[in-house]
Amino acid sequence: VIVEKIEAMLGPEARPLAGRHILVTAGPTHEPIDPVRFIANRSSGKQGYAIAEAAEALGACVTLVSGPTDLAAPPGVRRLNVETAEEMLAAVENALPADAAIFAAAVADWRVAENPSAKLKKSGGAPTLALTENPDILKTIAAREDRPALVVGFAAETGDAAAKGQEKRRSKGCDWIVANDVSPESGVFGSDENDVTLVTGESAEDWPRMRKAEVARRLMTRIAEALEGRPYLPTRAGHGA
Amino acid sequence: VIVEKIEAMLGPEARPLAGRHILVTAGPTHEPIDPVRFIANRSSGKQGYAIAEAAEALGACVTLVSGPTDLAAPPGVRRLNVETAEEMLAAVENALPADAAIFAAAVADWRVAENPSAKLKKSGGAPTLALTENPDILKTIAAREDRPALVVGFAAETGDAAAKGQEKRRSKGCDWIVANDVSPESGVFGSDENDVTLVTGESAEDWPRMRKAEVARRLMTRIAEALEGRPYLPTRAGHGA
Repeated sequence: VIVEKIEAMLGPEARPLAGRHILVTAGPTHEPIDPVRFIANRSSGKQGYAIAEAAEALGACVTLVSGPTDLAAPPGVRRLNVETAEEMLAAVENALPADAAIFAAAVADWRVAENPSAKLKKSGGAPTLALTENPDILKTIAAREDRPALVVGFAAETGDAAAKGQEKRRSKGCDWIVANDVSPESGVFGSDENDVTLVTGESAEDWPRMRKAEVARRLMTRIAEALEGRPYLPTRAGHGA
Repeated sequence: VIVEKIEAMLGPEARPLAGRHILVTAGPTHEPIDPVRFIANRSSGKQGYAIAEAAEALGACVTLVSGPTDLAAPPGVRRLNVETAEEMLAAVENALPADAAIFAAAVADWRVAENPSAKLKKSGGAPTLALTENPDILKTIAAREDRPALVVGFAAETGDAAAKGQEKRRSKGCDWIVANDVSPESGVFGSDENDVTLVTGESAEDWPRMRKAEVARRLMTRIAEALEGRPYLPTRAGHGA
């Protein structure tokens, strides 16, 4: 925090994202089964929140679209709370344009096809839940004509992060992938540390295991470098950019 | 808190549960779909935690079997953390004998019949989740020969709490039911207030809407009265009773 404060006092060179709008998603989504039950996942939101905080520290105007988490919004960050994948996509689309978007949320791949307005009764017997595919937020945004200059996805995989990250980068049409190992043995879900591989174009860098805050700072520094020299977004009311 | 401290100084009369072992369950359960996804529910655990705290304040030795919540264990309460309904039942059985048991947890009625050890792949298409019935913790404990003298269940219902509470009391074989309205309009899930009907034997009392801590104090005072004059459990190592 002291380092960030000193950086902030050093002027524009230390705030390379000043005038940029950075969009970040974080956390899990909750997909309702009925009014009291839902499908969730073990994402804590810590990595996405750390990225939002790091982007703000580098001078960006940050919009954080967050699924349900216990985390406090980082100071100076505009947080939009959502529950489901469909709500998250709508919030992201509303928040555009952005210079870069980092999709760190663990969005549910599927939702329950039908969810009744009354609680399912136990007496009705054990139900079968038919799931249906959720919108693919990363792919949808990467395909837009007004897409951010840099679209970064996360790939939560078990094993061979670099290869799976490359494959995901191609199939989603995004620019970079931060691939991480979420096998139970890695213990990164819910942890303060992460073990990632950054896939940019054809190359992949294995980063050493480090704190999520440090992953966030490194990633945002790389994003600031990639945005250097690019034109700024037209100023729009409400973004402060 | 001040009232409780004064009560604690007033001696044995103010600690009517001294020498009693009270078992409380609280929170939701999480039922795994795969290593990262699970089925959850909107229980916050606040009512069960308040009950454990109130029992401790009245002098009891308290075991709190808790599903995943963000709540801190009340001071002086022995907390056992569990995730699934099956783990909760095992923890409750291990914690017996008890003078009274209050089952405030929102236990999942169903779990996923099969859960794979690897994360389900999106490329596999939207799956169908076959659910299967979980053990009924309340009914199982109420039917045991060494059951607590007083077994209290919770009924989370939408509408007509008294009638549904009576029906649940009979079908579960428990002594009392605390019935509450969990329809979304009531807003009690996650809230600090509750709106309950206490069903004891053939009578039902509608309590006014009040804070969950106050519901807990009233309920534990009633339980202390009901236990008055009953023989104490044989002293067992580890329970402090």
